Amino acid sequence: MAPHVYIEELARHEGQEVVIKGWLYNKRSSGKLHFLEVRDGTGIVQTVVFHKDVSPEMFAAADRLAQETALEVTGTVRKHPKLPEHEISVRDLRVVAAPTQEYPIGPKDHGTAFLMDHRHLWLRSKLQHAALRVRAEIVAAIRGFFDGRGFTLVDAPIFTPAACEGTTNLFEVGYFDEKAYLTQSGQLYMEAGAMALGKVYCFGPTFRAEKSKTRRHLTEFWMVEPEVAFMDLDGDMDLAEDLIVAVVEQVLGRRRRELETLGRDPGRLEQVKRPFPRITYAEAIAILQQAGKEAKSGDDFGGDEETVISERFDRPVLIHRYPADIKAFYMKRDPEDPRLALCVDVIAPEGYGEIIGGGQREDDLAKVEASIAAHDLPRQAFEWYLDLRRYGTVPHAGFGLGVERTVAWLCGLHHVRETIPFPRMLERLSP
Amino acid sequence: MAPHVYIEELARHEGQEVVIKGWLYNKRSSGKLHFLEVRDGTGIVQTVVFHKDVSPEMFAAADRLAQETALEVTGTVRKHPKLPEHEISVRDLRVVAAPTQEYPIGPKDHGTAFLMDHRHLWLRSKLQHAALRVRAEIVAAIRGFFDGRGFTLVDAPIFTPAACEGTTNLFEVGYFDEKAYLTQSGQLYMEAGAMALGKVYCFGPTFRAEKSKTRRHLTEFWMVEPEVAFMDLDGDMDLAEDLIVAVVEQVLGRRRRELETLGRDPGRLEQVKRPFPRITYAEAIAILQQAGKEAKSGDDFGGDEETVISERFDRPVLIHRYPADIKAFYMKRDPEDPRLALCVDVIAPEGYGEIIGGGQREDDLAKVEASIAAHDLPRQAFEWYLDLRRYGTVPHAGFGLGVERTVAWLCGLHHVRETIPFPRMLERLSP
Repeated sequence: MAPHVYIEELARHEGQEVVIKGWLYNKRSSGKLHFLEVRDGTGIVQTVVFHKDVSPEMFAAADRLAQETALEVTGTVRKHPKLPEHEISVRDLRVVAAPTQEYPIGPKDHGTAFLMDHRHLWLRSKLQHAALRVRAEIVAAIRGFFDGRGFTLVDAPIFTPAACEGTTNLFEVGYFDEKAYLTQSGQLYMEAGAMALGKVYCFGPTFRAEKSKTRRHLTEFWMVEPEVAFMDLDGDMDLAEDLIVAVVEQVLGRRRRELETLGRDPGRLEQVKRPFPRITYAEAIAILQQAGKEAKSGDDFGGDEETVISERFDRPVLIHRYPADIKAFYMKRDPEDPRLALCVDVIAPEGYGEIIGGGQREDDLAKVEASIAAHDLPRQAFEWYLDLRRYGTVPHAGFGLGVERTVAWLCGLHHVRETIPFPRMLERLSP
Repeated sequence: MAPHVYIEELARHEGQEVVIKGWLYNKRSSGKLHFLEVRDGTGIVQTVVFHKDVSPEMFAAADRLAQETALEVTGTVRKHPKLPEHEISVRDLRVVAAPTQEYPIGPKDHGTAFLMDHRHLWLRSKLQHAALRVRAEIVAAIRGFFDGRGFTLVDAPIFTPAACEGTTNLFEVGYFDEKAYLTQSGQLYMEAGAMALGKVYCFGPTFRAEKSKTRRHLTEFWMVEPEVAFMDLDGDMDLAEDLIVAVVEQVLGRRRRELETLGRDPGRLEQVKRPFPRITYAEAIAILQQAGKEAKSGDDFGGDEETVISERFDRPVLIHRYPADIKAFYMKRDPEDPRLALCVDVIAPEGYGEIIGGGQREDDLAKVEASIAAHDLPRQAFEWYLDLRRYGTVPHAGFGLGVERTVAWLCGLHHVRETIPFPRMLERLSP
């Protein structure tokens, strides 16, 4: 019997008879020929049913196949007469399962709500395949980057007893007789990890109960958070830059076909080379003012501001030294101007928004204690965190990179809902 | 100025002056020499302070250093006179930060509760380093295995609207005006993924609100779940076997030193070769009865039974075809004996318990509908799942492998609490 091969492997089987197992994606006929496009998850292949090669019954049956019929196709692998790919000359065709009713997603234009309600089926379409493959490549690139640089993966807990940056926007869970919160960030735990293992990262889902309905927000999203002992803000910015360049290179090297499918111009991504521009918060404010935006020192940046700033540059821009007052309690202040925090945000090009936030952490016990008090945070919950400043405190820094926004940027997707297999948003908890 | 190098890189710098940045792990003195053991997360190095090489003040200061003092040590890398490693002849020593109080974890025997309360500091010890490095290697090996075989990572959602195997043991979360549950398994979503992308896996945290306090249970644990379209139970068992062999090989190849630190005999792991024994549930019952256990057909296996069975074999054992009545609703029944499910559990050797559960899924629409009804599950919540049987249903199978139990087995750890950086258990939500 002919061997089962995946469509992505066809080139290695030219001239051989193989079995493809998959689903009917599309179909057209021209009298004596049926062209059945079959997908198996690794690609789509044109299979050609010629009336002389099969029985009259099979030829007639092939004409009646509905979209998403599960099939086993046996045939010989041939070069496609026009395209740089392979096709299959069908000898045998077996229906594994016909749909019990008409497949709801057709070539016509469906609304987003309909497609999101049918996300479990929508995943079968070409564009979703491509986006999810780029996502998987980005995840692999990130993990490879850190593993290859001697970082130890230290998974942060999802259940946390306290909030990292205040209790607003937290999901609360009944934890037996206690309350727990779903993590917003593994950072505090990574600081403990860095003091133990030097260079660490966590990479998992994080949660924000934000009521905002924007194209950049999910309630559940994945974040990678490296943290390094004895690293300062400059080192942190170098690390962020190196990571982004490595991820873009790997995606360009291995997922170019998927980018094409998505209509993403790889030329824009090829510009993502070292060095990235690094500007201060003050310089960012000046850019906004020059662009006619109402912006003054002390403002935080929203999506609109990020877009204006990103349009000035052909690659990601690092904005450092925001006012400490608008940043989290754990940020170290700039010794040269204590009104500023030694922090950095990285804004993706082309209006895809902030993809990284990070910086150097305050390593002085008394200053962290004062900051916890000034931010009205529950001191007791942070005692273990303060221990990190009690026993051999050292300068350290890190950042968090959001996976979904990175996927949106590299794929050229307007909305983050298509960057994750099963998105969770304000009004979206299923399927 | 001498370059900062990590301890794991010292061999490449023999004869050179370098800077080590880390923490004092241990100290002993012999009159004219202080031996300071410094850890930096990548290893521990002996640094030697000779009274003639430094000022009298520095020599005296070195004698007073407390455990976990943060240090920068400048000196020359030399071969250790007795051990196959390197040491440092110190020229300069800078205290970055002395502990503000005595480090709570000393050489004396601490109780487990105390160590768990100080988990953020306990991570700094040798044994915890070794276990977490093995964990990270296992995670990398798993991801490499699936990425290398053409699987696409499809992250499953954490927030789910319904339960996969009933609503007991679920953590409930307020999701704006709705209720959500934290995922127990990504399987149902992976079935959608497999119908779209052929071969998929998810790998993330999963949650069980079990009130059991055993050495094998966490409320939050990581699981990898592959799912493959057109794969049957035999293929599933092959895949599970291949995965375990690949993971064990990578850990033996790259983390042998950590296994030694943990006192784990690598000889036991070297026996983990293909083929693994495959026994039926009925055979497993017979083994238990021969061992004098009260066991009868229809019983599920707990930790005790798993241990007895595992002791019969020198490698993981696959137990297949349990009674369908004690298994989940989605399992396909054995056509040769419909009382049995086409499922498989993999039991680790040496009493480390079940590490894999999986099997072939029911792919017939009417049978899944009947099973949902028979299990009293809310039909509405599974409509999307039924769609997978409506539109081109195919045979498919998969499994879930629990990371923490795998870490416990490979590291030889009695309790899973040391297999994850910040364990979450019935009475443990912090730090």
